[in-house]
Amino acid sequence: MAKSYESEHPVKALGLAATDSSGHLSPFKFSRRATGDDDVQFKVLYCGICHTDILNLKNAFGMTQYPIVPGHEIVGVVTEVGKKVGKVKVGDKVGVGYMVGSCRSCESCQDDLENYCPKSIPTSAAPYHDGTITYGGYSDIMVANEHFIVHIPDNMPLDSAAPLLCAGITTYSPMRYFGLDKPGMHIGVVGLGGLGHVAVKFAKAFGCKVTVISTSLSKKDEALSHLGVDSFLNSKDADEMQGAVGTMDGIVDTVSAHHAVMPLIGLLKAHGKLIMLGAIAKPLELPVFTLLGGRKMISGSVTGGMKETQEMIDFAAKNNIKADIELISADYVNTALERLAKADVKYRFVIDVANTLQQS
Amino acid sequence: MAKSYESEHPVKALGLAATDSSGHLSPFKFSRRATGDDDVQFKVLYCGICHTDILNLKNAFGMTQYPIVPGHEIVGVVTEVGKKVGKVKVGDKVGVGYMVGSCRSCESCQDDLENYCPKSIPTSAAPYHDGTITYGGYSDIMVANEHFIVHIPDNMPLDSAAPLLCAGITTYSPMRYFGLDKPGMHIGVVGLGGLGHVAVKFAKAFGCKVTVISTSLSKKDEALSHLGVDSFLNSKDADEMQGAVGTMDGIVDTVSAHHAVMPLIGLLKAHGKLIMLGAIAKPLELPVFTLLGGRKMISGSVTGGMKETQEMIDFAAKNNIKADIELISADYVNTALERLAKADVKYRFVIDVANTLQQS
Repeated sequence: MAKSYESEHPVKALGLAATDSSGHLSPFKFSRRATGDDDVQFKVLYCGICHTDILNLKNAFGMTQYPIVPGHEIVGVVTEVGKKVGKVKVGDKVGVGYMVGSCRSCESCQDDLENYCPKSIPTSAAPYHDGTITYGGYSDIMVANEHFIVHIPDNMPLDSAAPLLCAGITTYSPMRYFGLDKPGMHIGVVGLGGLGHVAVKFAKAFGCKVTVISTSLSKKDEALSHLGVDSFLNSKDADEMQGAVGTMDGIVDTVSAHHAVMPLIGLLKAHGKLIMLGAIAKPLELPVFTLLGGRKMISGSVTGGMKETQEMIDFAAKNNIKADIELISADYVNTALERLAKADVKYRFVIDVANTLQQS
Repeated sequence: MAKSYESEHPVKALGLAATDSSGHLSPFKFSRRATGDDDVQFKVLYCGICHTDILNLKNAFGMTQYPIVPGHEIVGVVTEVGKKVGKVKVGDKVGVGYMVGSCRSCESCQDDLENYCPKSIPTSAAPYHDGTITYGGYSDIMVANEHFIVHIPDNMPLDSAAPLLCAGITTYSPMRYFGLDKPGMHIGVVGLGGLGHVAVKFAKAFGCKVTVISTSLSKKDEALSHLGVDSFLNSKDADEMQGAVGTMDGIVDTVSAHHAVMPLIGLLKAHGKLIMLGAIAKPLELPVFTLLGGRKMISGSVTGGMKETQEMIDFAAKNNIKADIELISADYVNTALERLAKADVKYRFVIDVANTLQQS
């Protein structure tokens, strides 16, 4: 008979879990494995709430195993390390992002792109190497193989660093890979949410001119004044859109809802690149000749490899990039998820795990 | 009053033209401009028949001005050069491809990518700088600015070189630009027609493993024996397609008819590239998550710049690459167009202009 999640491992843990596709989270007792030779155990301090958490909680992909403890923007402080661990030591600040495992031998893994390993293991709700199900960062303690541990520089505030482990790397990685990181480039960012506002910050740090493209005119003032974007394009305004045709080197599209990409492709210069980051379920309509005429491309990207995640965190620390967050207590999490579903947050909820997660 | 095309220029020319959207070609008297300081005049020897000729003849894009003299795969021998011309001399073998003009000052032009200049001037049926309409290579004489003249190396057979000026550069350029030119790469070529068979030859010359992907099983034997492709994939065979999932670094898709790209994206490895070359009118269906999961991209490309067209011709000459052609006489051209519409040609018709074009 299979062991229960309360007794399968020796380390007692407390998390927030949903037991069905209502996605409602409640306190949940489970267990974590003992710290193996290559493992790092850490006390979770903060965990960001990503839009993907909602999808997994509600079984949007049809693959969720319940109970599910979400959370893949996790930061904390090291409490124990295995004897082979050299990357960090007890007391260090660390983080875990979207994955906690991969095959470590395929072409993607050898290229430091574990995120594209066919056997990469998500941090939450996925079968781990030992057959147990992974529990994420809405919990008081984490254990992970050191390869999937990111070292957080001392000068970073930990609460606003947490979202960088998913929202940060998800935007940073494609901008680097597709060469949308050159000073003077004009970068469009579609959608000003958790991913979008971080994309703006990285693009500005790269020295790019940044235009936010949004249907929400209400975000214009803050985008211009607070986030320092160079311009704001109301995608519902045909004249504004027409005026920007052919002006952008690349566009980072963070919107998960179905939307037309034709107008975005029109905004690109010749050889421009449209990078989709939202897992849009319904197929896009894409007239091929809009790509041909200017050798434009459309691509997508998911999170990033461990090497570039560390590079991203170090770059963020050096350039004072942090997510804009609303820090919440653990007992507010269900309300926060409801608000996030309505995009009612500037720009990322982060759970104050260590100070507020408790049994009842 | 506007001058007639017979008298607007001093140089008498004879071509094949259609006067309406039936696309039927008949002998046609017109005139070419006198050789300007930067111009090269040449006697046309051969001209390839491209599928785009059919589209333009029949006004598929709604922009054709009649009479139209098609032809943009033109080779011949220089008969006169302007006093500023330094690139070629009388007697040299030369060619003209898809365009005869561009603005020469925009970013694309400065990057030697005149083909993406918004003001690039097609070789046939487009307004030239002087306000006259361009007439293509289904004609006995050509005049073009030397910038748009390609020098054909002496060791190239001219008839089979002609198709390289469109089919050749159209496949060569994106393989180079998108890095699908590395020895050992696995390249898929969709469609084995005028473009596809040349794509195969360039990919083999780059040292790639080449798989032809086609719905026409009848092409399999010849592809393997005559063209030397490494494997042939029947895209209608689900098992064959499944067996090739995730194996290709890039795919060059030469098919102009509407078709599903999802299965093609599935054939790509992580970070693989699907390059569309056919101007498919109906929008594609593209589920975005198929791109995200492996950071795959879909792009398009049209012809190439003048610098890379010369590079392509020189590469082809060095590697003994030539198009497989069916040489026809000028009076066969209407039949050839009908056969081409049914893909009944291996693999490109070329008109023996100098020997067969005559008044009646």
